[in-house]
Amino acid sequence: MALNHTANGVYTIAATPFLPDGTLDLVSVDRLTDFYLGTGVSGMTILGIMGEANKLEPEESLQITRQVVDRADVPVIVGVSAPGLAAMRSLARNAMDLGAAGVMIAPPPSLRTDDQIITYYAQAVEAVGEDVPFVIQDYPLTLTVVMTPGVIRTIVNNHPSCVMLKHEDWPGLEKISRLRAFQKANEMRAISILCGNGGLFLDFETERGADGAMTGYAFPDMLVDVVKLQQAGERDAAHDLFDAHLPLMRYEQQQGVGLAVRKYVLAKRGVIASDAQRKPGSAITATAKGEIDYLLSRVARFDKRAAL
Amino acid sequence: MALNHTANGVYTIAATPFLPDGTLDLVSVDRLTDFYLGTGVSGMTILGIMGEANKLEPEESLQITRQVVDRADVPVIVGVSAPGLAAMRSLARNAMDLGAAGVMIAPPPSLRTDDQIITYYAQAVEAVGEDVPFVIQDYPLTLTVVMTPGVIRTIVNNHPSCVMLKHEDWPGLEKISRLRAFQKANEMRAISILCGNGGLFLDFETERGADGAMTGYAFPDMLVDVVKLQQAGERDAAHDLFDAHLPLMRYEQQQGVGLAVRKYVLAKRGVIASDAQRKPGSAITATAKGEIDYLLSRVARFDKRAAL
Amino acid sequence: MALNHTANGVYTIAATPFLPDGTLDLVSVDRLTDFYLGTGVSGMTILGIMGEANKLEPEESLQITRQVVDRADVPVIVGVSAPGLAAMRSLARNAMDLGAAGVMIAPPPSLRTDDQIITYYAQAVEAVGEDVPFVIQDYPLTLTVVMTPGVIRTIVNNHPSCVMLKHEDWPGLEKISRLRAFQKANEMRAISILCGNGGLFLDFETERGADGAMTGYAFPDMLVDVVKLQQAGERDAAHDLFDAHLPLMRYEQQQGVGLAVRKYVLAKRGVIASDAQRKPGSAITATAKGEIDYLLSRVARFDKRAAL
Amino acid sequence: MALNHTANGVYTIAATPFLPDGTLDLVSVDRLTDFYLGTGVSGMTILGIMGEANKLEPEESLQITRQVVDRADVPVIVGVSAPGLAAMRSLARNAMDLGAAGVMIAPPPSLRTDDQIITYYAQAVEAVGEDVPFVIQDYPLTLTVVMTPGVIRTIVNNHPSCVMLKHEDWPGLEKISRLRAFQKANEMRAISILCGNGGLFLDFETERGADGAMTGYAFPDMLVDVVKLQQAGERDAAHDLFDAHLPLMRYEQQQGVGLAVRKYVLAKRGVIASDAQRKPGSAITATAKGEIDYLLSRVARFDKRAAL
Repeated sequence: MALNHTANGVYTIAATPFLPDGTLDLVSVDRLTDFYLGTGVSGMTILGIMGEANKLEPEESLQITRQVVDRADVPVIVGVSAPGLAAMRSLARNAMDLGAAGVMIAPPPSLRTDDQIITYYAQAVEAVGEDVPFVIQDYPLTLTVVMTPGVIRTIVNNHPSCVMLKHEDWPGLEKISRLRAFQKANEMRAISILCGNGGLFLDFETERGADGAMTGYAFPDMLVDVVKLQQAGERDAAHDLFDAHLPLMRYEQQQGVGLAVRKYVLAKRGVIASDAQRKPGSAITATAKGEIDYLLSRVARFDKRAAL
Repeated sequence: MALNHTANGVYTIAATPFLPDGTLDLVSVDRLTDFYLGTGVSGMTILGIMGEANKLEPEESLQITRQVVDRADVPVIVGVSAPGLAAMRSLARNAMDLGAAGVMIAPPPSLRTDDQIITYYAQAVEAVGEDVPFVIQDYPLTLTVVMTPGVIRTIVNNHPSCVMLKHEDWPGLEKISRLRAFQKANEMRAISILCGNGGLFLDFETERGADGAMTGYAFPDMLVDVVKLQQAGERDAAHDLFDAHLPLMRYEQQQGVGLAVRKYVLAKRGVIASDAQRKPGSAITATAKGEIDYLLSRVARFDKRAAL
Repeated sequence: MALNHTANGVYTIAATPFLPDGTLDLVSVDRLTDFYLGTGVSGMTILGIMGEANKLEPEESLQITRQVVDRADVPVIVGVSAPGLAAMRSLARNAMDLGAAGVMIAPPPSLRTDDQIITYYAQAVEAVGEDVPFVIQDYPLTLTVVMTPGVIRTIVNNHPSCVMLKHEDWPGLEKISRLRAFQKANEMRAISILCGNGGLFLDFETERGADGAMTGYAFPDMLVDVVKLQQAGERDAAHDLFDAHLPLMRYEQQQGVGLAVRKYVLAKRGVIASDAQRKPGSAITATAKGEIDYLLSRVARFDKRAAL
Repeated sequence: MALNHTANGVYTIAATPFLPDGTLDLVSVDRLTDFYLGTGVSGMTILGIMGEANKLEPEESLQITRQVVDRADVPVIVGVSAPGLAAMRSLARNAMDLGAAGVMIAPPPSLRTDDQIITYYAQAVEAVGEDVPFVIQDYPLTLTVVMTPGVIRTIVNNHPSCVMLKHEDWPGLEKISRLRAFQKANEMRAISILCGNGGLFLDFETERGADGAMTGYAFPDMLVDVVKLQQAGERDAAHDLFDAHLPLMRYEQQQGVGLAVRKYVLAKRGVIASDAQRKPGSAITATAKGEIDYLLSRVARFDKRAAL
């Protein structure tokens, strides 16, 4: 089940469940996987930033990969970004051996010039192997690396194994339009574009030509519906559903505390046993929980799934 | 009409109107001022980042200050952030002489440690004069300077002329709670807290203890209403109104293109003659304009002021 | 005396003399100008970072420009970098009217991609006018903007008024070689390359094809001699002189305190009345002064000019 | 042989030898270890930034640690900085089990405020264990994290296992004086201070109270001599030796290409079989090699060890 450029729909960014003492909660890994599958996602992305990947021991990363890949009947993408290419290579090879569909690679924050970015992806492809389908993660807000549409085009054209862009530039609507224009003009190979940034612009990103979402909002079922409604041409309905969730999505997309919000809601939905993060993690106050509960009650007026 | 810590409500961040050829549109300055006053704002802030302050000649800055201060019957805050203290001092003194109520000072992006930030504000206060009421602008997303609540407390306590915080840390709800707790414990003098960040969290910021908003969303009338509803204890009504605007607010809060969106809407509302920015400025495509029009039509279902 | 691509030798970065109370020391401006001219410099650069340009009022900047241009019989370059293009334009036009030979433009720190840098210089050229010769300042350590040789080539080729590169990338020897190779291959117009970074690599930069130095080391006479010796093919003699000064040059090139060191030495040489900086400035301790005195005494064993 | 605050002299930052094909050169690891020991170093630091640590697989890191610790009769410090605490913990525990004397911990580049830095070290100490002696790496130029003397004092006082500061702030002489003043005033526990930054200020750092150097300059024998001469009060002799090497030290301290220079010299000295770096690495041109050869020949006029 290798990843390719036709991927679309929602690839959920999977949280990593921990017990309150910080150990991996492997039971919840299964339950969470089942939950995601039940929401209708087209794929899963594990070991990303929101998956607390950098807090895991290498063996734990492989354990989670094995467990999710074995259980899921959808493509699983594994985040393999690492400070060094050796660690990236070994995680990528191991993940592919375990059955992953592809890997996601973010640029290291030190990159500045167009050439540096293009060269880095060439080195990364050499490291993980040209046979491994990969996703470019374009996330300037966190990574401080800015890729122009032209740079992305070069990377795509240089590497047949580049099949997807995780688009989370901000603002980014024009970037999607530019990339799709490149394709239309036969200047760039076709790729799948899935959007991140907590889904905050998914309503218009799909209209601009994105194939769907790759984010971890605690209601992936809503994201799935929005993408489907847009694909079916039901613009108003898509926006109605999206807008009902937007106040909560915005609250969950806060840098730093966002993961705590997301895990709180996932725990409320009953899919993870604890909202604990492995250290160092962020916590939310009782006041914040009250705000989330209030937001959920408001979403629930429109979408019953939020009545928790 | 000196600014003090009791300030509350909405201090709108004023746009600066230009004609398509880049010259100042002084006629629209008056019309825009009248428009803001008509929306019920408690004050105005001019020459901020969104006011394209750094594109103005010194004489132009004074011309705008003079015109707005003379026309407005509410306090006017002037942004005086500058790479050097000499320029800051002369703009501040001139603005106060013209009748400004106070000045706003952002930290230069090079500051890192707590001591550096505290020292900088001491130098700035010495430069502009201890008699000039000032606002701390706390905007890490753009300025890259991170102020802890403790650092803000020190600045407030060191300088009686510090009367307000423009709060646009993100996330920032807990910061407001921390600062208000300092006040309650008599560890910090009382200050006014007005919130920026495009108003994206105003619904909860007011619940956390903020006194209102200081942002430039193209519907300041809505911001005024939300603050009033919250002050009147009408939580649900405040959120209902806020949520109706949130899809558009989010669209307007995009880094870089946000000002173009704002000016487009202000022009549609008839308060500025042109949505032109002085170079270098951002422009929005026809597709983007279509998206804004669609968002306006959706907001208008709830709030007739958006029916343009 | 317009600046052009044949410029070579040493363009000293001029300090700006202040009295201990922070006012401009106009008497020392003349004395300092005479001193620089006496050291054999080919030109002067005023109002740069080390000239405390951002602490000056606009009128002060013009006063210094007028005074130096009138007195100097060598080309004077004026630093016009500013947060906004309007301020840059007015300073540039005024400086040229007063007789400056050209202007120096640094990129604002927010620029990231190749396109952003190229576009910025196009906007700056439009602002100051295509008739104004300008210098690109390439200083990533302080400005965080990284320009590849290819980007510099594009800017040079796009703008005939670009006649010089102030090269202070670090490391930068290969960059000089690359740019000179572009010229040799007729891929880039000829430009003058003068090197900054406190002169720390001037010994090899000249061997790589640089035309000289643009820096403010307190012994410009030594820089002049090193460039002349290299141009005369006396490699060993050039390195001998350079190496004798290197311990002091290194000490002076410390970020933040470097200017205090430089002014201390210039005051010891009798060319400025006070080593004061306008606020906010850095100061050096008695221990540091003792270290500088010791270094001067060591340099003086080889170069009598350091016997102060 | 646990590390403690009395450590002094030179702790060399060890290079990691690779064969031209990128595999670890374990034979050269032994030879390099013997070479360092022969130069009179007091200790060794492995797996630092200059040791290409982030390009190694976890097992390779342990292999090198085992080999060096077993062979060396001096304390070995292991760099354990990692994006996540789990990886840091496992490397630290494994290294200590193998006989390391302590670990070195750099702050992640995202830290900004004093509190964030202090908190991070508390989390790191909890992760590696309070029984593991550790070194703070204070390297703002590369890490972008700025620690005030007061922050370092807090970390030292909070954690008895903090026994050393690797000081490579720039400029940093006053910082050393401040920290030693804290100690003298009994405000901070005694720690060892060893200096990095390629040794570029070692001549004065030792005079300010530093206990020696922790850097990887290709002539650790010279660093050892300079520290000894300073400890013996032979100031002029120390500076004479230091100054003779400074032109080469400066050349080796270039960001990015510095390691290539260092490995080139080490290979010339016959202690590593190849100057290869594991990908992605930097290479130096024939012109650069000529420049290094020239510098070596000049150093050799004073110090025969450079006659290669």
